[in-house]
Amino acid sequence: MTKVREFKEKERYTMNLLVKNVTKGVTQKGAPYLNLVLQDNTGTIDGKLWDASEADMAAAKPGHVEKLAFEVLNYNNNLQLRVNRIADLDQDLIDLSEYVMSAPVEIGELKARISGYMDSITDPTLKALVKGMDAFVGKKFYDYPAASSIHHSYLGGLAEHTLGMADLAEAIAGQYPVLNRDLLIAGVLVHDLGKTAELGGLVSNEYTLEGKLIGHISIGHGWLMETARELGLEEKQETLLLRHMILSHHGRMEFGSPVLPAIPEAEVLSFIDNIDAKMNTLKTALSTMKPGQWTQRMFSMDNRQFYKADLD
Amino acid sequence: MTKVREFKEKERYTMNLLVKNVTKGVTQKGAPYLNLVLQDNTGTIDGKLWDASEADMAAAKPGHVEKLAFEVLNYNNNLQLRVNRIADLDQDLIDLSEYVMSAPVEIGELKARISGYMDSITDPTLKALVKGMDAFVGKKFYDYPAASSIHHSYLGGLAEHTLGMADLAEAIAGQYPVLNRDLLIAGVLVHDLGKTAELGGLVSNEYTLEGKLIGHISIGHGWLMETARELGLEEKQETLLLRHMILSHHGRMEFGSPVLPAIPEAEVLSFIDNIDAKMNTLKTALSTMKPGQWTQRMFSMDNRQFYKADLD
Amino acid sequence: MTKVREFKEKERYTMNLLVKNVTKGVTQKGAPYLNLVLQDNTGTIDGKLWDASEADMAAAKPGHVEKLAFEVLNYNNNLQLRVNRIADLDQDLIDLSEYVMSAPVEIGELKARISGYMDSITDPTLKALVKGMDAFVGKKFYDYPAASSIHHSYLGGLAEHTLGMADLAEAIAGQYPVLNRDLLIAGVLVHDLGKTAELGGLVSNEYTLEGKLIGHISIGHGWLMETARELGLEEKQETLLLRHMILSHHGRMEFGSPVLPAIPEAEVLSFIDNIDAKMNTLKTALSTMKPGQWTQRMFSMDNRQFYKADLD
Amino acid sequence: MTKVREFKEKERYTMNLLVKNVTKGVTQKGAPYLNLVLQDNTGTIDGKLWDASEADMAAAKPGHVEKLAFEVLNYNNNLQLRVNRIADLDQDLIDLSEYVMSAPVEIGELKARISGYMDSITDPTLKALVKGMDAFVGKKFYDYPAASSIHHSYLGGLAEHTLGMADLAEAIAGQYPVLNRDLLIAGVLVHDLGKTAELGGLVSNEYTLEGKLIGHISIGHGWLMETARELGLEEKQETLLLRHMILSHHGRMEFGSPVLPAIPEAEVLSFIDNIDAKMNTLKTALSTMKPGQWTQRMFSMDNRQFYKADLD
Amino acid sequence: MTKVREFKEKERYTMNLLVKNVTKGVTQKGAPYLNLVLQDNTGTIDGKLWDASEADMAAAKPGHVEKLAFEVLNYNNNLQLRVNRIADLDQDLIDLSEYVMSAPVEIGELKARISGYMDSITDPTLKALVKGMDAFVGKKFYDYPAASSIHHSYLGGLAEHTLGMADLAEAIAGQYPVLNRDLLIAGVLVHDLGKTAELGGLVSNEYTLEGKLIGHISIGHGWLMETARELGLEEKQETLLLRHMILSHHGRMEFGSPVLPAIPEAEVLSFIDNIDAKMNTLKTALSTMKPGQWTQRMFSMDNRQFYKADLD
Amino acid sequence: MTKVREFKEKERYTMNLLVKNVTKGVTQKGAPYLNLVLQDNTGTIDGKLWDASEADMAAAKPGHVEKLAFEVLNYNNNLQLRVNRIADLDQDLIDLSEYVMSAPVEIGELKARISGYMDSITDPTLKALVKGMDAFVGKKFYDYPAASSIHHSYLGGLAEHTLGMADLAEAIAGQYPVLNRDLLIAGVLVHDLGKTAELGGLVSNEYTLEGKLIGHISIGHGWLMETARELGLEEKQETLLLRHMILSHHGRMEFGSPVLPAIPEAEVLSFIDNIDAKMNTLKTALSTMKPGQWTQRMFSMDNRQFYKADLD
Repeated sequence: MTKVREFKEKERYTMNLLVKNVTKGVTQKGAPYLNLVLQDNTGTIDGKLWDASEADMAAAKPGHVEKLAFEVLNYNNNLQLRVNRIADLDQDLIDLSEYVMSAPVEIGELKARISGYMDSITDPTLKALVKGMDAFVGKKFYDYPAASSIHHSYLGGLAEHTLGMADLAEAIAGQYPVLNRDLLIAGVLVHDLGKTAELGGLVSNEYTLEGKLIGHISIGHGWLMETARELGLEEKQETLLLRHMILSHHGRMEFGSPVLPAIPEAEVLSFIDNIDAKMNTLKTALSTMKPGQWTQRMFSMDNRQFYKADLD
Repeated sequence: MTKVREFKEKERYTMNLLVKNVTKGVTQKGAPYLNLVLQDNTGTIDGKLWDASEADMAAAKPGHVEKLAFEVLNYNNNLQLRVNRIADLDQDLIDLSEYVMSAPVEIGELKARISGYMDSITDPTLKALVKGMDAFVGKKFYDYPAASSIHHSYLGGLAEHTLGMADLAEAIAGQYPVLNRDLLIAGVLVHDLGKTAELGGLVSNEYTLEGKLIGHISIGHGWLMETARELGLEEKQETLLLRHMILSHHGRMEFGSPVLPAIPEAEVLSFIDNIDAKMNTLKTALSTMKPGQWTQRMFSMDNRQFYKADLD
Repeated sequence: MTKVREFKEKERYTMNLLVKNVTKGVTQKGAPYLNLVLQDNTGTIDGKLWDASEADMAAAKPGHVEKLAFEVLNYNNNLQLRVNRIADLDQDLIDLSEYVMSAPVEIGELKARISGYMDSITDPTLKALVKGMDAFVGKKFYDYPAASSIHHSYLGGLAEHTLGMADLAEAIAGQYPVLNRDLLIAGVLVHDLGKTAELGGLVSNEYTLEGKLIGHISIGHGWLMETARELGLEEKQETLLLRHMILSHHGRMEFGSPVLPAIPEAEVLSFIDNIDAKMNTLKTALSTMKPGQWTQRMFSMDNRQFYKADLD
Repeated sequence: MTKVREFKEKERYTMNLLVKNVTKGVTQKGAPYLNLVLQDNTGTIDGKLWDASEADMAAAKPGHVEKLAFEVLNYNNNLQLRVNRIADLDQDLIDLSEYVMSAPVEIGELKARISGYMDSITDPTLKALVKGMDAFVGKKFYDYPAASSIHHSYLGGLAEHTLGMADLAEAIAGQYPVLNRDLLIAGVLVHDLGKTAELGGLVSNEYTLEGKLIGHISIGHGWLMETARELGLEEKQETLLLRHMILSHHGRMEFGSPVLPAIPEAEVLSFIDNIDAKMNTLKTALSTMKPGQWTQRMFSMDNRQFYKADLD
Repeated sequence: MTKVREFKEKERYTMNLLVKNVTKGVTQKGAPYLNLVLQDNTGTIDGKLWDASEADMAAAKPGHVEKLAFEVLNYNNNLQLRVNRIADLDQDLIDLSEYVMSAPVEIGELKARISGYMDSITDPTLKALVKGMDAFVGKKFYDYPAASSIHHSYLGGLAEHTLGMADLAEAIAGQYPVLNRDLLIAGVLVHDLGKTAELGGLVSNEYTLEGKLIGHISIGHGWLMETARELGLEEKQETLLLRHMILSHHGRMEFGSPVLPAIPEAEVLSFIDNIDAKMNTLKTALSTMKPGQWTQRMFSMDNRQFYKADLD
Repeated sequence: MTKVREFKEKERYTMNLLVKNVTKGVTQKGAPYLNLVLQDNTGTIDGKLWDASEADMAAAKPGHVEKLAFEVLNYNNNLQLRVNRIADLDQDLIDLSEYVMSAPVEIGELKARISGYMDSITDPTLKALVKGMDAFVGKKFYDYPAASSIHHSYLGGLAEHTLGMADLAEAIAGQYPVLNRDLLIAGVLVHDLGKTAELGGLVSNEYTLEGKLIGHISIGHGWLMETARELGLEEKQETLLLRHMILSHHGRMEFGSPVLPAIPEAEVLSFIDNIDAKMNTLKTALSTMKPGQWTQRMFSMDNRQFYKADLD
């Protein structure tokens, strides 16, 4: 079946797509219409359904995979769908992996490599805390994106981001003896686990109420306090240092860290979080551009534009 | 016995004082000396012990009440002690209340009034959470200062600050129906409890390691998560809102709140925390000045100077 | 007669409304149309008049109550009017109170309670200054909104805001003896009087030229200097302190205060101005929402979103 | 008589100097001493009077010219006086111009040139306002410094600063027709008149209470409102524009302007105020240095260091 | 021929205009259209070409002068063109000066006056550097705008801006002896030459790749290093000072100056750059407005609005 | 011979040390003395020479190795020297490597490894530019510190910092295919070469005049422009990208970069510059502390304190 990434201007298709978002509008002439965001596992595209009937409006359900008939138009140099019909489907028969994007690395491999990092920690307190947190979060660790839209926003994104950081951490810890390798790796493995309560998951792609009122940093820190108490490790220095790493990993108070890094490992953690997120963001932004072009201003890159050079 | 507040220039005394702080120095001529900060329950004063012997240096122990012989000098319009002898005492025989300042309200009354506010909460979830946190912290709530030096830095200061805020909260909640009174009072009662782990207590007057690496906001928030789970209230909306109030009560990210107030009660909590702290700071600063004078620049008042007017 | 707040989707009405604002547009096909903001004393609503004739354009006069025929549409989940006809009316026959919103407290009561606060000042200098300023401003005090759009933007809003602050001031002055109650109340009563020259009043709802070039803080301060000179009070300390309170009441230079609060009463004045404005803003924003919803980002609340919780 | 600028290391003198400032200290050995700031019309120098007697302390009066005996020492490459004796004098016999620095331009010439600028204004409203303000302030205009320490801090400094700005204004107005020359000149002539109430004058060299609580911008603006009302010009557009220029002349809210420049003349006024102040500051700082040297960090130059180049 | 500035609502014209910019769109009904920015030497105007054919889309070439048939409409109080036909022309036959705006001063006069300033420099090193830079840049100096859109954005704008600054520099250097006149004039003459590589020139009106990746400050500084080395002047103090003036002329690091002004001439250079740019910006903005009106918020004036007063 | 790091309290030594810095003072009693900063290749220590004679003052020459007799004192928990005699030496007989600190890696090895990175670049333009810059700077690359005091401030520090960054670059480029490895390595090798003109070298340890007026970023960028022109590579895209990397490597305008990173390699360069500098700073700060201690506030670490944990 044709995929979103392969859509061509002026072609017509009838096919299933995930309805990511629906808003209603009314034209200047008073006719109702629907703004749709549609998606499969290769990309996302905007659509309009003009002269929407009551039936259309009832059928268009955010989070559902639905059957649509549409034509592909070019609007300001972007493709857009003009949808003619929409019908809901029996969601139980859907294979969701066709409709949400996945990490480029296979989930099984992500799990194996992250487990390898957990096992490689030799400090018993840190290993127990990391494994306790992993058990607490469970499968969600591999189902979640790392952010709702900015970077690694796909199935397995949180795990892929964690693994990318662990690889960076291993290389940097090997280069600077002032760093305790076990503490840095443990910090990487737990720093973002609170995101599994902050975000609603891939399909809804929204912040939860807990996410907006509390935030993943404080959620994850609270879980680590609970985990440590259950394991009888709440008085250990390693526990205090690992809690500090979760709290300080955004590196600046205005980015939501209530304390700033005060140990070398926390300082490095905030750097590698930043590097891995930005490399993923730039990869995504530049991958669909031609050499010699500039990106739009990118909010998550301090509102800068980036240039795609013409090197081999 | 003469109190610190009553010391007079050029007088000599031999008496017991709490040694708050000791640092060693050496004069230009190579002679060792001690800088001392000394205290009783009426105030604090600097002292110097010149030509310090090994015995002097061994005797001067921070946190101990000791026997000192000294003369009172005027140095740049401030009184200062020139200490001639210092001797340690049996600390078990000391009545500490003679040497640390106390809240102007008697502790028993603070307890009674704060208990009254706890009992006045009608929402069962909020009442259970507040009482659970109170049980967790216990007696420390009434022994602790509200800050190491800025405001309410005396025995019972944390409780006095909490009570002052509760009185403000009651008045404001009565004026604006958009506020839920129970939630606001509950927020007042728990917002600063983490300070009992952040600060080392009145005598040492220092931040703990947990205080510096974690901070009272995240400590208190973690305790509330643990308390809620023990009480089986972790899924309640009230729990989420109360957690949010602890996290947001500094009102600005650069002051260490990882999230900003997002409900009216949290907004008001950050205001009344600020008002009560600043009124206490100004009371202390202005109480010893004459009308027509200006204070020094005050760090905790955004580095401003304040004027003491001549009104009745 | 049906009120704006009661309008229903797809209904048609012919009725009188205040034309708050008119801008002209032209459609992609070259046809002229009018964007209208329409209002009665229950609310404000946008409207479009398509294919506007010269007569339509002449009839639509901002600040006039006019007769309109229209249909109510749903546009992006907001109601909007599709206006078919518009005709001007004899403005002398209009009862404006039907078309502008009023403070929830009746004007007579506002006057009585504010007069009560004026009379309660015992310091003769402060009382004379406050009464002098009141006489200078006169009736406008009770006709004006407190802001053009952000908070208390309705008939009597300025007086209601002043009264709300006076109630807060009375409660806070009673709790902190470091505050001079008369000075604080006097500051509340005069702090915003300059707004009667800064704003054009409720119907026009715009800043005046003096408002934009000078601002209500400097206007009010100048009036107080003139008032004091007329009363022979220009050398009094109380005059200086009250002038300082007007100038510093925005609390931060970047908010337009040329000096920062330097007496406790000025510090509290800036706090209670903030609290009363924000409580009014939140009341308005949350009153039309359902529990569980979030507001839009609110410019006057530091661009934050607020959550309407589901508490009783 | 030898002047301060001519003092030489290791010389001894007995002579009269203005006592600018006195603070008391006590040495490590308990002996009282005085820190003095002493001055004549060529400069300022620090002094110490060790082992100060009660008589010394009584004699040293800030603001008085006194007779001193002292030796000149080199302390960290700065000259400093070691004062041995100090005696008060009959202040009525003193010619103050020997002890305070004056503008390099003679006062009579300053007056003549500033009067010339006043007379050159052709707009009758602006001319009346400027002359009314000049009459209000009177002789102080020519006695005052332009700042307590930063720039033009000498007798006639305020007038010299005003004149320097008027010369700049004339040149710039001639170059850009978008500027109204009369309005710009009028703005220059009145913008800083409030400083005659903000500062205590040359000898005391301190901010007044009105200066600290109100500031020269709001003082001058209030005077202009009073002047305009007396002249019956309060409704004139020129009055509003001139008030705006006083208020906005610091160019940034964080520098104390409650409104920002909103007409071209106000924009230029803030630039030329800045240029004239900075040129005077740099002239003073560089005049005593050798080519190839750097200044200290200069607070009033955004904390920068400046380099004195070796050009002819 | 009618000029853009003279267009009247509802008139129809067929005439040649420069196509400054083209973007494609598609209407809600799926029909393609073109957004055009069109220009002659009196102004710029937006246009729409509805139902664009393939031929229309091929004909509309940015940077070309083309023949258009259109009607003038009023859209939100701005004039806009509804284009019916568009046809490309032989660009070799076009006199570009009809289609791009020019400095109000004639180019020949700009050249003569700038040459006069170059010849007036008496310091041989500075004169050689300025003439070397001038030879390097050549004719572009007089063809370029001073900015892509903000100020002096017309043929000869860079030279006119430079000359305006030189006139200011001459006046200010004459007033303050602390300034070296030759160094200041030399700084004015070379400070913006890098713009001839930063901008693509008047017709394209875009930043070059070098402009975006390097910026005119660093381009010009590099050219001066190369020029100095060719002339054997790289070790001269004057060279170092002139390099410093190029680098520091934006006056603040956040505006792209890698160092801040550290000599008086550099400080003044940044002021007069600012003054001349802002006077030109305000002249342009106010010239088409009526007295009593306010401008839009102006990005290059710190987002302020300006008022056009009614003075003669 | 005893080294600075081995000095013990109350011991007396006569030995040679490098005089890093000399300032003169005068005691309260009028006696001249010298403040000295003394150094060997293990560390730096302060000293005082009381009652300094003319001969002492003449002998103490900054930058010279001299013979000193002194006693070691404890002053506020820091060791300090009380110098009794000082005599200059024949500087030609001195082996400077005994008196300045060196990088922990041997210079020969630094050279070999950096040459290896140069040879590993396969892009011919980038390789030619890097080798051209290396030839231009020559031996200084291996003699210079990377900063005057903050990080890598020892013989070979610049080369060690460059090598540390190259190792990081190699690891990160291997992990993220969006990065061009050759460009990143080339950027690392040239980014700080301007420091060899910005700093005066290890013994003087001061910024040069060119360093203060121009800065190493603009110096290095200018050299690269000159190098590219000599090699005929000034029009190559690689040259432009490498110039951009030098200019943007501080990552923020307020840190002196005139442009912000706009290609992925420039973004990473600013990160790894930061990481290597901070790891070196922390290593130095923590190496002399005991576990459980906090550092002072560190200016180059955003004024934070760091904690030395007790992990193995």
